[in-house]
Amino acid sequence: MTNIRHPYLLFLGDAPDQLAAKTSIGVGQWRPEWCVGQVRLPGCKADSGFPDLSVDAAADRGAKTMIVGVVNRGGVFSNAWLAPLVRALERGMDLAAGLHKRLNDVPHLAEAARRHGRKIFDVRHPTEDFPIGTGARRSGKRLLTVGTDCSIGKMYTSLALEIEMKKRGMKADFRATGQTGVLIAGSGVAIDAVVSDFVAGCVETLSPANDADHWDLIEGQGSLFHASYAGVTMGLIHGSQPDALVMCHEPKRPHMRGLPHYKLPDLQHCIDVNVAAARLTNPKAKCVAVSLNTSALSAKAAERAIKSTEDKIGLPTVDPARTGVGRVVDRLARMR
Amino acid sequence: MTNIRHPYLLFLGDAPDQLAAKTSIGVGQWRPEWCVGQVRLPGCKADSGFPDLSVDAAADRGAKTMIVGVVNRGGVFSNAWLAPLVRALERGMDLAAGLHKRLNDVPHLAEAARRHGRKIFDVRHPTEDFPIGTGARRSGKRLLTVGTDCSIGKMYTSLALEIEMKKRGMKADFRATGQTGVLIAGSGVAIDAVVSDFVAGCVETLSPANDADHWDLIEGQGSLFHASYAGVTMGLIHGSQPDALVMCHEPKRPHMRGLPHYKLPDLQHCIDVNVAAARLTNPKAKCVAVSLNTSALSAKAAERAIKSTEDKIGLPTVDPARTGVGRVVDRLARMR
Repeated sequence: MTNIRHPYLLFLGDAPDQLAAKTSIGVGQWRPEWCVGQVRLPGCKADSGFPDLSVDAAADRGAKTMIVGVVNRGGVFSNAWLAPLVRALERGMDLAAGLHKRLNDVPHLAEAARRHGRKIFDVRHPTEDFPIGTGARRSGKRLLTVGTDCSIGKMYTSLALEIEMKKRGMKADFRATGQTGVLIAGSGVAIDAVVSDFVAGCVETLSPANDADHWDLIEGQGSLFHASYAGVTMGLIHGSQPDALVMCHEPKRPHMRGLPHYKLPDLQHCIDVNVAAARLTNPKAKCVAVSLNTSALSAKAAERAIKSTEDKIGLPTVDPARTGVGRVVDRLARMR
Repeated sequence: MTNIRHPYLLFLGDAPDQLAAKTSIGVGQWRPEWCVGQVRLPGCKADSGFPDLSVDAAADRGAKTMIVGVVNRGGVFSNAWLAPLVRALERGMDLAAGLHKRLNDVPHLAEAARRHGRKIFDVRHPTEDFPIGTGARRSGKRLLTVGTDCSIGKMYTSLALEIEMKKRGMKADFRATGQTGVLIAGSGVAIDAVVSDFVAGCVETLSPANDADHWDLIEGQGSLFHASYAGVTMGLIHGSQPDALVMCHEPKRPHMRGLPHYKLPDLQHCIDVNVAAARLTNPKAKCVAVSLNTSALSAKAAERAIKSTEDKIGLPTVDPARTGVGRVVDRLARMR
């Protein structure tokens, strides 16, 4: 399993805007205690809020991995990145990237990593072998975030739950299944890049048997109602054996992401179908809450959306960014 | 896309029994018109029924591909196979294998293939890139075989339908999604070896737009109720956009294959869940028939099982090996 060492140095490169560096910035937001600073090249318009450091200064402060969570125009590898990345390897750091393009395929980097005995983690490209899923029950509790669509708040909700549960002294661990999540957690697997036969088995490996009162908070992917990715979601549901599902939804989304001809499913129907699928490997699976992404709404409209959803669905409804996830954790704390 | 040339020469190697050579034998059963003969090594206890030939004699008869559809004890590559496989390459044949072990990873074979300008198809290990599924509707009709479990007759049913439909002059093509099917069809993709994100897109590619009255008969894999593989099945269902599902089932199977702690689903429930999943990408999807595998039953018990299933489910019920699939094709012929 990928195991990325921290402290982290956040590489923002020559990102033309915040969005281009969103992965590095996200790692900084969710793991501020692991980050010593950021490296920005001339022309960079993004800012993670961490102090600007040279690679050498970051190495002196103990950085063990440089997080390459940035894309440039066209999604290709930028030659301007080469010198700082090689320098990081020379100074004893590993590299961890969530790019489509493998850093391991950049000859200069692969060669420098070999020379300095360092690792390059291309987290979008898992290289391990995983077992076939067994469906065997294992100890410990598991929560899986699911959604009406992709990119709707599943990682955000899972991470918010981890913070709130740890604050209350509960045993909980975020289990990453996407590239940004893996960089945030320092471990995990980008599940959509795993060979289809092994998806359920991979998730079983990611969330192994644990203490009876320990919660794995498994980051969901895709949606059972997304025509491109529902198979990934199905394997994730079965491998997770979730005791609890949290359904993530964005009230005003016009259509399924990337599929303009597909409408979002009805929220209650989506919950029912996800619970039914989950019950194959955990007959006690239930949906415990709804997590709304109301970022496109005014404060007032968001409040209304949360209340009307809660009235309609009959489950605690939150927006992690507005209301926090305390009410979800209240409910988890009562589950034995 | 894999495209394997025929005529075929069936390699049975030193198979200790029929089961060990079942892939080669299956290719011979379903594509007799493509097969010139078989190669058996000393000690071989399997027989495809085709004439025994030397590699050279087969080459003289025009064989273009040697089908390596055999496993020996332990599933490893047998050194005894090396000489005949190299000879086939020397005589201008390609090799096509459905083994876990890649023939391309056997240095002598890879080198001989290169030297003679021949191809080695390791059909369990697709090497192409596939697109993300779009869910966009395409012309032509599609049938997908689904099942209550794995290894329950989906390939057999699909192939039997192809033969019956072609006999009636209908436009129909078997679309292979597993290694044996790919060897039989000479094309297709072992879908369980495709990266999970691309399963639906791969199936869309496998069954492209076609004439309005053309049927793709898509080989199903796994089961939505199999805890290890349901994700593969889900991607296959969505990518297929099936107009028609045929549900495959074995009445006396004691538990899900490989999962002794999982019972088979109720047949009607399994149909309902598969149809609901299929309607995401084809709102008109319906289940048109049940295909029973009654090979474990006496003729009398099989007849009873077929009748009672038909009475209970209310759909034409067949066993392709006993009753043929004519009644299913009758129904397809009425679908416009």
